[in-house]
Amino acid sequence: MPVIDMSAGVVLREVGLRDGLQSLARTVPTADKLAWLRAAHAAGLREIEVGSFVPARLLPQLADTAELVAVARTLPGLVTSVLVPNLKGAQAAIESRADAMLLPLSASHAHSLANLRRTPDEAVAEIGRIRALRDASGSRCRIEVGISTAFGCTIQGRVDPDEVLRLVQAALDAGAEQVGLADTVGFADPLQVARLFERGLRVAGDRLGCAHFHDTRGLGMANAYAAWQAGIRRFDASLGGIGGCPHAPGASGNVATEDLAYLFMSMGVPTGLDFDALMALRGRVVQWLAGEPLHGSIWRAGLPRTLKEPA
Amino acid sequence: MPVIDMSAGVVLREVGLRDGLQSLARTVPTADKLAWLRAAHAAGLREIEVGSFVPARLLPQLADTAELVAVARTLPGLVTSVLVPNLKGAQAAIESRADAMLLPLSASHAHSLANLRRTPDEAVAEIGRIRALRDASGSRCRIEVGISTAFGCTIQGRVDPDEVLRLVQAALDAGAEQVGLADTVGFADPLQVARLFERGLRVAGDRLGCAHFHDTRGLGMANAYAAWQAGIRRFDASLGGIGGCPHAPGASGNVATEDLAYLFMSMGVPTGLDFDALMALRGRVVQWLAGEPLHGSIWRAGLPRTLKEPA
Repeated sequence: MPVIDMSAGVVLREVGLRDGLQSLARTVPTADKLAWLRAAHAAGLREIEVGSFVPARLLPQLADTAELVAVARTLPGLVTSVLVPNLKGAQAAIESRADAMLLPLSASHAHSLANLRRTPDEAVAEIGRIRALRDASGSRCRIEVGISTAFGCTIQGRVDPDEVLRLVQAALDAGAEQVGLADTVGFADPLQVARLFERGLRVAGDRLGCAHFHDTRGLGMANAYAAWQAGIRRFDASLGGIGGCPHAPGASGNVATEDLAYLFMSMGVPTGLDFDALMALRGRVVQWLAGEPLHGSIWRAGLPRTLKEPA
Repeated sequence: MPVIDMSAGVVLREVGLRDGLQSLARTVPTADKLAWLRAAHAAGLREIEVGSFVPARLLPQLADTAELVAVARTLPGLVTSVLVPNLKGAQAAIESRADAMLLPLSASHAHSLANLRRTPDEAVAEIGRIRALRDASGSRCRIEVGISTAFGCTIQGRVDPDEVLRLVQAALDAGAEQVGLADTVGFADPLQVARLFERGLRVAGDRLGCAHFHDTRGLGMANAYAAWQAGIRRFDASLGGIGGCPHAPGASGNVATEDLAYLFMSMGVPTGLDFDALMALRGRVVQWLAGEPLHGSIWRAGLPRTLKEPA
């Protein structure tokens, strides 16, 4: 096994308030979202995606995003990010003074048309316009691109790794400052993850920053481990494993934040997270989302006693 | 990533008929077990643990083990194994003409006393007596030792890796022909798995043959991937993830055979298994065990379409 620097921790980016809630029909009251946000910060989460600047008629669940950003910005040390589908959303993100905006770019042509109503290359061109807008505005809002369906697509089927890597380079060339790879529909396996992230790191270096997995078929933890082995140190996750893309049929469940926290805790990799506080928040999420299916594994059995005892 | 020989396949040993059924209060009729056995063989499984030679008053669920061995021996190419807790069980295994007997050896002193009512070193001495009996009888029944609680124990807590490795060597010295490491209670993480199997392989070489994981906390697939990376090519699993040790409180669920099959299929590693036939058998197991909780992940979403299409 290659020697890995274990002192370097990992960052889990909580995306439940955006990726999770957009997949549910109900609208969670803003007051509950704010309690959720504050508790997530108190549990040690230092990157939180709080919403999306999309038209409220499309995603009324996220209509209060600007309000969430305003509160999130007051929480010490928190990197507040929002999803932004286009130039208009980017303008709103800049005005909200979010720390980062996440731009989706589908590696699957078919998913790109279904989800964003534009081809991947048209989405790349929009990244360029967003970068120009951001620079002209004097904003320091970081531009991140999440390459979705990077490991396959429920609509299109296979996605060529060469096309994924071409889009990584194109996104950087267009002005993205960070790029991540997402297994939007839960098709990835750990060898595929290792290979694509290793190739991506050769293209993008430390600008390839984030891995986003869904646990649709039970390989979420194995895929996260494989990405970590490849050198990735930031992971998207949602408490209770909620989430799924409305334009990717069959997609379900981000990897659960608490499961990912357990994976890294058990390996001795620092996360900065308070596991008990995470689980307490999960319990509140269960109540806020009463009736919705939550996911994940560690909540059933709890931590092994070997993790609860001093070494 | 190190280069791995992908042409070498993996062997999944189905343990549901033993490890699975011993954990359930009900007794499955022999006729159903035989249908299960035949369908497992037809789905491509070539190692099946069909039962255990323990007193019927302790495990009435497995009282028909000799009958299952007799039928299993007629199935072409099948390695039929049985669990054997002591010399008397070994005698029965030899008489049954099973191909292999699996001897449990707990690395946790506390679990050893609870489960086998002897210390680990007393269990090692019994391995020696069983080897002498086997050799004297002219039998060719292979002697395998499964080192349970190798990654931690619900009763004792931490288990020292040095003690596990000492027992690997002791088991081989006492006459075991194969040794495996088992995460009986679902405490293992992938780094721990990688490290212990790598050390074990240096001690035992290719006599360290098998990995046995439980998915109690959602890390079963990640642990299997880590063991595979370390060089392990045989894995225990049970259809529907049934199983658990009655003397290891909180233990639940072997890794599901169908999940492990999916993991390796998705990575392009040959398994010799017919996935659709496995899933059809899982459906019958659901009926035979009506009312019992089954586990696993892939049954929910099914194979990704990328695995169902020609490359």
